[in-house]
Amino acid sequence: MEGLLTRCRALSALATCSRQLSEYVPHRFHPCGPGKGQRLVLSRMFQPQNLREDQVLSLDGKSDSLTCKSQRLMLQVGLVLPASPGCYHLLPYTVRAMEKLVQVIDQEMQAIGGQKVNMPTLGPAELWRASSRWDLMGKELLRLRDRHGKEYCLGPTHEEVITALVASQKKLSYKQLPFLLYQVTRKFRDEPRPRFGLLRGREFYMKDMYTFDSSPETAQQTYCLVCDAYCRLFDRLGLRFIKAQADVGSIGGNMSHEFQLPVDIGEDRLAICPSCNFSANMEILDLSQTNCPACQGPLTETKGIEVGHTFYLGTKYSSIFNAQFTNAHGKPSLAEMGCYGLGVTRILAAAIEVLSTEDCVRWPSLLAPYQVCLIPPKKGSKEAETSELSGHLYDHITEAVPHLHGEVVLDDRTHLSIGNRLKDANKLGYPFVIIVGKRALEDPAHFEVWCQNTGEVVFLTKEGVLELLRTQVQVV
Amino acid sequence: MEGLLTRCRALSALATCSRQLSEYVPHRFHPCGPGKGQRLVLSRMFQPQNLREDQVLSLDGKSDSLTCKSQRLMLQVGLVLPASPGCYHLLPYTVRAMEKLVQVIDQEMQAIGGQKVNMPTLGPAELWRASSRWDLMGKELLRLRDRHGKEYCLGPTHEEVITALVASQKKLSYKQLPFLLYQVTRKFRDEPRPRFGLLRGREFYMKDMYTFDSSPETAQQTYCLVCDAYCRLFDRLGLRFIKAQADVGSIGGNMSHEFQLPVDIGEDRLAICPSCNFSANMEILDLSQTNCPACQGPLTETKGIEVGHTFYLGTKYSSIFNAQFTNAHGKPSLAEMGCYGLGVTRILAAAIEVLSTEDCVRWPSLLAPYQVCLIPPKKGSKEAETSELSGHLYDHITEAVPHLHGEVVLDDRTHLSIGNRLKDANKLGYPFVIIVGKRALEDPAHFEVWCQNTGEVVFLTKEGVLELLRTQVQVV
Repeated sequence: MEGLLTRCRALSALATCSRQLSEYVPHRFHPCGPGKGQRLVLSRMFQPQNLREDQVLSLDGKSDSLTCKSQRLMLQVGLVLPASPGCYHLLPYTVRAMEKLVQVIDQEMQAIGGQKVNMPTLGPAELWRASSRWDLMGKELLRLRDRHGKEYCLGPTHEEVITALVASQKKLSYKQLPFLLYQVTRKFRDEPRPRFGLLRGREFYMKDMYTFDSSPETAQQTYCLVCDAYCRLFDRLGLRFIKAQADVGSIGGNMSHEFQLPVDIGEDRLAICPSCNFSANMEILDLSQTNCPACQGPLTETKGIEVGHTFYLGTKYSSIFNAQFTNAHGKPSLAEMGCYGLGVTRILAAAIEVLSTEDCVRWPSLLAPYQVCLIPPKKGSKEAETSELSGHLYDHITEAVPHLHGEVVLDDRTHLSIGNRLKDANKLGYPFVIIVGKRALEDPAHFEVWCQNTGEVVFLTKEGVLELLRTQVQVV
Repeated sequence: MEGLLTRCRALSALATCSRQLSEYVPHRFHPCGPGKGQRLVLSRMFQPQNLREDQVLSLDGKSDSLTCKSQRLMLQVGLVLPASPGCYHLLPYTVRAMEKLVQVIDQEMQAIGGQKVNMPTLGPAELWRASSRWDLMGKELLRLRDRHGKEYCLGPTHEEVITALVASQKKLSYKQLPFLLYQVTRKFRDEPRPRFGLLRGREFYMKDMYTFDSSPETAQQTYCLVCDAYCRLFDRLGLRFIKAQADVGSIGGNMSHEFQLPVDIGEDRLAICPSCNFSANMEILDLSQTNCPACQGPLTETKGIEVGHTFYLGTKYSSIFNAQFTNAHGKPSLAEMGCYGLGVTRILAAAIEVLSTEDCVRWPSLLAPYQVCLIPPKKGSKEAETSELSGHLYDHITEAVPHLHGEVVLDDRTHLSIGNRLKDANKLGYPFVIIVGKRALEDPAHFEVWCQNTGEVVFLTKEGVLELLRTQVQVV
């Protein structure tokens, strides 16, 4: 992001905009000299973390609806606000975390050849009738009529739509395949009982990929390729996961896996075998089955939150919509399909659920909304003479560590003690908290650095701080 | 984006994913040695530009529905595909351009202190009834009932919702204001006659910002600040625009401006004064008025496409939802509001409308989906011996000009002549097309570089190409 002033360029002849930059200093930032960049300050953020707990609870109407840790914490520190049952406002910190997550997903999907598209929300009823899911999905489908009486649903998933889209391409050759098409969009499902905050909402962001292959063999390879990309994604986020065999449900097809984060509040029951790699959702096992079908060893049970789901679809949808390509023999042939979902907002909430303490949000390092929080001394304290030092340190960090540009927040609420602000910072889960405290009076000045993810607290000179951040901070 | 292989890390104990990377080469890319990066190749893209015109027209059902140049071109070169009336699939090139546009918008909004939020699509009827817009909006509002019979609309705009959100914050102080909250999300409007492709659709992406100030004076300053940011945005995109006084319409308030791109197919009639800065939408002028209200000079008329709209709302919504803050005297006071829209998908289509020729798409340089297209010689031609050179040039470019990473496409359809591929590249509007042709046989090799935006064609050595791209390419 360039500074404001450097962008003030000549107007085109027709523009009649009156620029009043010099009269009005922007908001969230401390004013500072040109070329110095701007400092993000906490006092101007729309971030209701100052709310006391009693207020937070009243936001949701009744405190007994706060059914899990991530939902309670996300409300408490101002990450989300409820809008209507199962629908949440995502506040600025959450939007930043979500955008980082989408960037990691884009990287992983594009590394395996994924191409990003964007399909409409309104799904024409005729497409959903063709697959019989207009009736099968029942009340989970939110439906409406337009001004002409034409029926639509709000897409909870897009198998019908994308298959019709690919089927409209009449000249596809086997040489072009496989296609791996994906989108990251808001999806809708009229949950009978929305709960757990972002974990089971009626509106949510999902990454859905659909693959089109020329043979069952290559489709299987594509299926493995996408599953491997999912594994890498969760590895990069530092989230322990289980890839479990699963039911195909209403999507259909003949092979399916769920990616589950093991945690007590999980709604899925999983059977895992400690001796071999087998794991499966209990719903696909015979209830009397207590031994692993693969190695006959005893199965153990755990609960999980489903964060990803993959399906090998075969020609279920391509045969309905006639999605064909020309094969190596010049003959038309039905595409072999797969579909692959990742719950974007759900991964955020599930990660917070598994990583956080009872009182403090913890993020996958890559996704933390801001990497660094800088706490200057309290106004009127004897360290207050070092408060200019805080500003300089802020500028040094963002200049010397370019990938931290936009990632450092200055907690300028200097009417509060360092301790109180540290408590807030701890709750919000910045990976690094830097305190300009007593030892900043030393020569050379030393700063107190809290590394949240390792639990370490160290005192470092400015150079030490820069070196630590340069080498330790992960940014997407 | 790191290479595939470097990301293949150790699995967590519970993960049971079988990685088969070595058996299966990803898709859209030419395989190449580790560390070399991957080459984006055109033959594997889901990008129906090879369709002949007769096929393109049939996609839309009837050719007379292609009512403007941008719609026709966007269908022809495979940027969008129709899904249902007023709803389009955005194909990969368009998604890339849109993501770049959103990045520019984010930069400009955040430079003035904008904070990004994300509000639900489902707007509870009670909020819309409170402002009377549930009835006023009539058939433009898409409405539905959930499984419990509760009524919602699909948000075309979010004044009600954001004001209720801010009103829920009971401890706002004047010291925290102004807040500039914005989102970039899909909006819905049941247009009586959707047309012009993305220019007037029923689903579209919009950037909507809402501002909350502590006094009418600061609210006016915030209004100017946002208008100035809009001016800078259109300047950066190289789009000539008119900022015209406008009607407040159903949004309400007491001051409003439209940002218009002047073009013949525009649906708005604008009066502009060549002698002073005055310009206005004709709908707010007395029909008999032919002289400028500011300088009395004669007015001229032009047509425009509205791409942005700003409103100073006063307390219209804050009084309905009781959005208050504590003022400097410790008393509760209603927030002064503004709202500000940018049509994201509409800016894309309008830019294509004003910049393109009849046959060839042209983009604002910053938004071009890919900056460079590299065309190697035709298979079997006498230049074919240089085709390895093309691959090397591709690698050199992406290594030597880091901001071009992911921005270079290799048109590997070497069964086609250079001329045919150049024609395709010209249609798609890559800012730079590099041809490995006859003069690549010289020592040193020379490459033919088409600079689409200046109309120049130059022959350069490899070093010259790198220097040109390093200095001339604009990337967000």
